[in-house]
Amino acid sequence: MANKKITSKDVDFAQWYTDVVKEAHLSTYSNVKGCLILEPNGYAIWERMQRVLDSMFKQTGHKNVAMPMLIPENLLKKESELVKGFAPEVAWVTMGGSKNLEERMCIRPTSETLFSDYYSNIVKSYRDLPIKYNQWCSVMRWEKETRPFLRSREFWWQEGHTVHESQAEAEKETRDMLGVYRDFFEKYLAIPVVCGKKTEKEKFAGAEYSLTIEALMYNGVSLQSGTSHYFGQKFSKAYDIKFLNKQNEWEYAYQTSWGVSTRMIGALIMVHSDDDGLVLPPNIAPMQVRIIPIGNDEKIAKVAGDCLKKLNKAGISAEIDNSDQTPGFKFADAEVLGIPVRVEIGKRDLDEGKITLARRDTKQKYQIPLSCDIVSEVQKLMQTIQTEMFERAKARRDKMTYVAKNLDEFEKIMTKTPGFIIADWCGDAKCEERIKEIRGTKSRCILENEKMITGKCVACGKKAQHTVLWGIQY
Amino acid sequence: MANKKITSKDVDFAQWYTDVVKEAHLSTYSNVKGCLILEPNGYAIWERMQRVLDSMFKQTGHKNVAMPMLIPENLLKKESELVKGFAPEVAWVTMGGSKNLEERMCIRPTSETLFSDYYSNIVKSYRDLPIKYNQWCSVMRWEKETRPFLRSREFWWQEGHTVHESQAEAEKETRDMLGVYRDFFEKYLAIPVVCGKKTEKEKFAGAEYSLTIEALMYNGVSLQSGTSHYFGQKFSKAYDIKFLNKQNEWEYAYQTSWGVSTRMIGALIMVHSDDDGLVLPPNIAPMQVRIIPIGNDEKIAKVAGDCLKKLNKAGISAEIDNSDQTPGFKFADAEVLGIPVRVEIGKRDLDEGKITLARRDTKQKYQIPLSCDIVSEVQKLMQTIQTEMFERAKARRDKMTYVAKNLDEFEKIMTKTPGFIIADWCGDAKCEERIKEIRGTKSRCILENEKMITGKCVACGKKAQHTVLWGIQY
Repeated sequence: MANKKITSKDVDFAQWYTDVVKEAHLSTYSNVKGCLILEPNGYAIWERMQRVLDSMFKQTGHKNVAMPMLIPENLLKKESELVKGFAPEVAWVTMGGSKNLEERMCIRPTSETLFSDYYSNIVKSYRDLPIKYNQWCSVMRWEKETRPFLRSREFWWQEGHTVHESQAEAEKETRDMLGVYRDFFEKYLAIPVVCGKKTEKEKFAGAEYSLTIEALMYNGVSLQSGTSHYFGQKFSKAYDIKFLNKQNEWEYAYQTSWGVSTRMIGALIMVHSDDDGLVLPPNIAPMQVRIIPIGNDEKIAKVAGDCLKKLNKAGISAEIDNSDQTPGFKFADAEVLGIPVRVEIGKRDLDEGKITLARRDTKQKYQIPLSCDIVSEVQKLMQTIQTEMFERAKARRDKMTYVAKNLDEFEKIMTKTPGFIIADWCGDAKCEERIKEIRGTKSRCILENEKMITGKCVACGKKAQHTVLWGIQY
Repeated sequence: MANKKITSKDVDFAQWYTDVVKEAHLSTYSNVKGCLILEPNGYAIWERMQRVLDSMFKQTGHKNVAMPMLIPENLLKKESELVKGFAPEVAWVTMGGSKNLEERMCIRPTSETLFSDYYSNIVKSYRDLPIKYNQWCSVMRWEKETRPFLRSREFWWQEGHTVHESQAEAEKETRDMLGVYRDFFEKYLAIPVVCGKKTEKEKFAGAEYSLTIEALMYNGVSLQSGTSHYFGQKFSKAYDIKFLNKQNEWEYAYQTSWGVSTRMIGALIMVHSDDDGLVLPPNIAPMQVRIIPIGNDEKIAKVAGDCLKKLNKAGISAEIDNSDQTPGFKFADAEVLGIPVRVEIGKRDLDEGKITLARRDTKQKYQIPLSCDIVSEVQKLMQTIQTEMFERAKARRDKMTYVAKNLDEFEKIMTKTPGFIIADWCGDAKCEERIKEIRGTKSRCILENEKMITGKCVACGKKAQHTVLWGIQY
């Protein structure tokens, strides 16, 4: 009995996505074109993501700062590749009060320029390094087509920006932070990801190279879910970030940046959710348990209250649905919001000394004795849900990951059953262009430790340089 | 032995303030005119403020959301008083990419317009009310003169925006949130505040009335530290927020908004800090304890490590200074950063079975036996510091709060020993203007439950309507 307000995802995936965003009250469009409002349920997920990631960043030695939201044009222009990449899609502030500004400023589309300018003032010696700063903020990119969480003019993210005294240390940071993202996706979001390096064509403007984690959505479309960039000395030369090294010589510093965004909420929807609404893994759900009293009864109310107290005390987020709705309505409401576990407390069950636990992900129900330890039962169940959600997502991803030896095979797969395709590539951007003709397929990343499939480029047949993951992208 | 990089606050208060901000690494100006960078130490204080306040907001039933940072001009203009108040000082976005926008948008100076527009879409029935939302963000006001934390073009804050079905409920919310701010200032920041109502001249543009908490700085200047506004139906009429009430009739909703900002960091500096740098109350200090090993010795290192483990386990934030600096340097460093408690571990002390606790606020040192419970000793000491910092601030504030019966007395006080002045007022804005001639003194707030001083206006001598708190403002 699916939620009647939600289109089936197998009938119209795009409409299903829009319906889930709406019915779970995650986000809505504002009257500011292309800009979202994060509603309380959507913001609560983002807040939980922030808490977990922030603590992972701090454990790896990073500190938070806040930079201005505006970038003067001359500062933006110092790094030529970056400005080429971003200038066409920034919002320009040209007036302050009633006066025209002498120099226009853009709202940050990303903050490499601001951090680099700051670092050029504070970095003097190798003793000042490494500097490992992060900021949580929103950024603005003047996109034409927008879709909640996946692409909007303003979006919320974190951006880490670090400075190091050697290439090796900066490259290690670039990989370490990609590892933090992978762990977060797999352990908290229950989403398997493929790690790899972006091709020259797809890398971040101004980076020496970009690493990425790529996830596959239910409909076979891939989502770039987090990136970590190695800048080498590109920005330090453009912004004059020099330090006295251990040999007492001036050297340009080595930098990285890395970020994930509210796009992750889109991934949660498109990987796990179903025709009844949102499905959230327990490790990221802002509300993990909803207790549902069935009927007005003093004993039921008491048992519900006891449950709540015990769960909260154990650090499990839980709440009671005390509305005067029918049980069916209450179940559907907990389902559309993606709350991982329901505790249902009804008179008949209680008379038999039992209560019921219900899983959101599989809809399975379990009767447990009222006398048992509710905390450990719920914890066990949440662990099972977390593990099985990841395993199901991984099995589906693996099933939808294909190998293509030539363009014919490639085209057949992408036309019939889109997903990830693994295929060899010669390294020529022209072959990427050729492949893009197949439903807009792009290289997702170079698979660094993968054995070659044929040793020949899937597009031109020449000697392959890399094995590459390909996909249609959001 | 004061910190040599910091000017004495009794010699040059403004320079002292600037020096403390710089030497404690709280904030620095960016190359974006009038915009600050919050450096790690400043941001950590803000983060701690956010954690505490956010939890107080949630306990009182508020939820977080995120609104766009831009406001289209037509949306800003709907409430005529608000636009008059803010239009002269907003930053205007006029271009997106390379195209001129059809309608310019400003960067939010505050978000009543955005929230009201959103509420007009989601409020339909009394069953939807109350709605109690908050957002953490930065806002932009095109100020001419700026000073770190006190006034800058961009600043970070929270803004609560609520909607209610009755005047009584909305007015209660307005007062309740002022109470939350007062509690936060007194219990966490150790800063006593005066609560009251702004005069018509000083209230927020578009409010029916504004409540405020006012604090007094060390130099006798007052700081508006937090405000809570009752809007009545002003915004609901301008933005068409109507609901079906319990009598099944359409009614305009009642609204409030309230906010505090990074300005609170300025208050912490100007109320508590001294010529050695920052002084932070333990309840708000991001780092509460610094352990300082004196000398390189295995036993010292072991005792330091044990202390750290015990303190951290008890939820006290602590760290060890393992730098190769001299003890004197380490002490000064912990002092300039305002860390409330130092644990000093030296060889001579250890041989006698002792360690030393040092208070940042009074510089007192206490020897305690190594065998005693370090956690409870530090907790006790932190409680004492917290209480005494509040009491000292309150005693100074009370000492600097004067009563004036006429303009002569008023002028003498404000010229010689500025502070708060309590004086009666007839209610006429012309008398506020007259008083402003005395060193720019403004009404801080109407004291609602205060007995009249003379019953006559301190400026014109006519019958007084209110007893008012006056002060020179930041």
